[in-house]
Amino acid sequence: MKKTSLALAAASLLAAAGANAQSVEIFGILDSGFLRVNSDGNGSISKVGSDGNLSSRIGFRGVEDLGGGMKASFWLEGAINPPDGSAGTTSTTNQPGGTAGGGGLVFGRRSTVSLSNSLGELRVGRDYVPAFWNLSNFSPFGTNGIGASNFLFYPVPSGARITHVRASNSVGYFLPKLGGFYGQAMLASGNNPSTAGAKSDDGNVSGLRLGYEQGPFNIAAATTRTQNVTLGNYTQRNVGASYDFGVVKAMALWGENITGTQKTSTKLIGAHIPVGVGQVRLAYSSLSATGVANDASHLALGYVHNLSKRTALYGHYARIDNKNNGKTFDLGQAVTRAGGSSTGYEFGIRHSF
Amino acid sequence: MKKTSLALAAASLLAAAGANAQSVEIFGILDSGFLRVNSDGNGSISKVGSDGNLSSRIGFRGVEDLGGGMKASFWLEGAINPPDGSAGTTSTTNQPGGTAGGGGLVFGRRSTVSLSNSLGELRVGRDYVPAFWNLSNFSPFGTNGIGASNFLFYPVPSGARITHVRASNSVGYFLPKLGGFYGQAMLASGNNPSTAGAKSDDGNVSGLRLGYEQGPFNIAAATTRTQNVTLGNYTQRNVGASYDFGVVKAMALWGENITGTQKTSTKLIGAHIPVGVGQVRLAYSSLSATGVANDASHLALGYVHNLSKRTALYGHYARIDNKNNGKTFDLGQAVTRAGGSSTGYEFGIRHSF
Amino acid sequence: MKKTSLALAAASLLAAAGANAQSVEIFGILDSGFLRVNSDGNGSISKVGSDGNLSSRIGFRGVEDLGGGMKASFWLEGAINPPDGSAGTTSTTNQPGGTAGGGGLVFGRRSTVSLSNSLGELRVGRDYVPAFWNLSNFSPFGTNGIGASNFLFYPVPSGARITHVRASNSVGYFLPKLGGFYGQAMLASGNNPSTAGAKSDDGNVSGLRLGYEQGPFNIAAATTRTQNVTLGNYTQRNVGASYDFGVVKAMALWGENITGTQKTSTKLIGAHIPVGVGQVRLAYSSLSATGVANDASHLALGYVHNLSKRTALYGHYARIDNKNNGKTFDLGQAVTRAGGSSTGYEFGIRHSF
Repeated sequence: MKKTSLALAAASLLAAAGANAQSVEIFGILDSGFLRVNSDGNGSISKVGSDGNLSSRIGFRGVEDLGGGMKASFWLEGAINPPDGSAGTTSTTNQPGGTAGGGGLVFGRRSTVSLSNSLGELRVGRDYVPAFWNLSNFSPFGTNGIGASNFLFYPVPSGARITHVRASNSVGYFLPKLGGFYGQAMLASGNNPSTAGAKSDDGNVSGLRLGYEQGPFNIAAATTRTQNVTLGNYTQRNVGASYDFGVVKAMALWGENITGTQKTSTKLIGAHIPVGVGQVRLAYSSLSATGVANDASHLALGYVHNLSKRTALYGHYARIDNKNNGKTFDLGQAVTRAGGSSTGYEFGIRHSF
Repeated sequence: MKKTSLALAAASLLAAAGANAQSVEIFGILDSGFLRVNSDGNGSISKVGSDGNLSSRIGFRGVEDLGGGMKASFWLEGAINPPDGSAGTTSTTNQPGGTAGGGGLVFGRRSTVSLSNSLGELRVGRDYVPAFWNLSNFSPFGTNGIGASNFLFYPVPSGARITHVRASNSVGYFLPKLGGFYGQAMLASGNNPSTAGAKSDDGNVSGLRLGYEQGPFNIAAATTRTQNVTLGNYTQRNVGASYDFGVVKAMALWGENITGTQKTSTKLIGAHIPVGVGQVRLAYSSLSATGVANDASHLALGYVHNLSKRTALYGHYARIDNKNNGKTFDLGQAVTRAGGSSTGYEFGIRHSF
Repeated sequence: MKKTSLALAAASLLAAAGANAQSVEIFGILDSGFLRVNSDGNGSISKVGSDGNLSSRIGFRGVEDLGGGMKASFWLEGAINPPDGSAGTTSTTNQPGGTAGGGGLVFGRRSTVSLSNSLGELRVGRDYVPAFWNLSNFSPFGTNGIGASNFLFYPVPSGARITHVRASNSVGYFLPKLGGFYGQAMLASGNNPSTAGAKSDDGNVSGLRLGYEQGPFNIAAATTRTQNVTLGNYTQRNVGASYDFGVVKAMALWGENITGTQKTSTKLIGAHIPVGVGQVRLAYSSLSATGVANDASHLALGYVHNLSKRTALYGHYARIDNKNNGKTFDLGQAVTRAGGSSTGYEFGIRHSF
């Protein structure tokens, strides 16, 4: 959210007057739509769903100027599910069993307090892990809806991949923009006592991301590792790049998910093609697996029609093919038969505030 | 919430400046009071309660002008219980077992995103079912406190009447005001997969409401049907009307609740009588039942004293009489003996923001 | 939050324009840091924790001028845990088993609606009990972090001390400032029906606080009693005083916690010492116990460095010594061995908005 000098002047005036109501910005997204997925040999589902285009959320954030180039800021953001008004959950420990929320509002998408200056930003709290960002930034559909390739997070035992998007109890450092270079380092704690023995380090997370952006070109590599003595340490690694030719923005992404017993490797190519006020999206990804998983492929085609900067209509088509009878990948609706294929479409509205 | 040109000008200025904080309105109600209910032969309760006058809530909403007469808007509203600060729950499936929230804040009162223009409003999300509105608009006490006649929702197995006020996963259409006519149509999904077999359609909801308002006169009819193969389909039907004579606004309401095994029919008459800055409220309703329920009657008298447009004090007296030993209707406090009567009073404060 | 005439003028302007968005203030605190506690003979814990300096929260509040010196106001404030974004719980009954929230946002810190004028304030809802305030105001570390002496709430069976900080379903009265005198009276209900028999009065709370503040001197005494027929009635009593010499603000506090079977008595002395933009904090408390508890002592040293009025960095050191093998007091991390000692430090950032 850019603010011009006019808004800043108004904010300063109010700040000078001692009113802090202006120091908090409320923001959010509601994304609702209709979804239908058909699976060969395992039924179908038609439903009113959410988050086909972007993740629905509500949040509160603000920035305080401390003087001398230093700023303090906070960010509280929680997931919501617009079709029913429920909210989300968070992990308190980065381990199985540490779930909190029960469907009530928690700031599980991001809950951070930061100090920043020209040397970068120090950020404490619950935040995205470094290896998440490439999956979102270099995939045409981000990580939302049936157009997103969920290969990039799977398969790993679900208890081990609690941190595949975010980690709690983290301390992060973000590089300032240095001639095109950007980066993030993170350490997070599982908050176990020493009496937990071999499990003392469970839920501890470390990660790193480095990127370079210049004009139309952007590239980044990242890795994140979460310790878990029972389930096996979980490592996420990926490299993504994009080039904006103007008539098309091309993207490529490679990612791995590894635990002691499982490893998957995914390659994705895709594009954003501007068409008037809209955007066509294309993505194809293929996964090769070692361990319990099978190989699979995913194809997606979509169109996003912007009614304004804040509001868009969208429609997606996607198909997934499982190559044999191992782990069954699906379009997020749990209706795909092992070894089978699944096709779906969704359309909806996304409104930001 | 009316906004004059001054506020709109200020909002436009900020919007032009790129600040979106002004695009969100925070609103709500806190209603707390003291309640005492006596039951013949089954004890009594005295407590600090809530929602005697209006339902307590907190919410966030906003409207975006898309140009060309089109608007996008959102509405997130959740229940709160001011005496203890707890929040609410919502249903994710319009069926038993789909409850979310656990007492934390959920936007279970309303969670919608809309597109509207001169042809009407298309609304997606969790919203009031069509058959709810008449029960609120043509009843002197609305659906709040001991003055409200809860006959109008009962008796139906509680699992079947999950949608007696709202439905999740809904798509609604609202007529624009057409020479006094108004209306709402709703379809909602239980979001079951085809593999659910006979239960595939459980939680699917359809409803319709049509009304006409001209000067002091207002009339509306509505019906809502929720599918449930185990508990029986649930149908709510009602017709209400009001006429504002100036010295008194008279109201009449007829409503039915039907499942496969149960049916109740309720008639209500009542009035609002303006008295200075306050309002006297009167209501009498009688219920005739088929199936497990008994006949019953409900009488209520109340006064609301407005301290301002936003804040009021209120006091209510109510009495319920059960005609025999079937289903026991009570004043919402579960202390009425089967076949017995129950009397109560409550007084409190309602503050809107 | 002081508002000068400029902000008030702006608020009036908007209020006159019918915009109510300005009638709600969003406020809060995020306090996150690193904590390490070592226990002799029972392990240690290192973690990213919260609330070392002040309790993290988010809230909404507002005041309406009703004219004639009368005001209506509301306050909704809930706990948050910034390291993971989870929220809190509340008690609906002031008794065991009445917990709501499940980690989602509840306004369990304070949920009140008030009417006030020159005769004082009448406040309804969930609020601090009278005996809480002295423990916060006359203790150098308040009730937060390892610097706070948790002796002042313990030991009492946890089910009995649900109201040691706040009570739900309360009606409170606050004296206006009368030549230095201040005070609070509270009655709260457990909301049990008469059919609960001997437990009908469980969760009922009564309390009183009286204080006097003049120039650098401040003194207050308070008591709160919660009824519970099974666990024994719980009484909290305390007296605190402070004197601000300028170079040092000295504090003294005496407090008791009593149930039928347990009684502890705590004496605390401490000081705030201004040092530039910062503040050194010192506290020593000793506890003598009757019943199951042992005697114990607690020493704390801290420094708070203010980066602005809204943001501070802090560091604390604390040590606790248990005198024998009864109830084990710890630094809030459950790693202290019965009869043993425990030392810890924490540092963090606290940001208000």
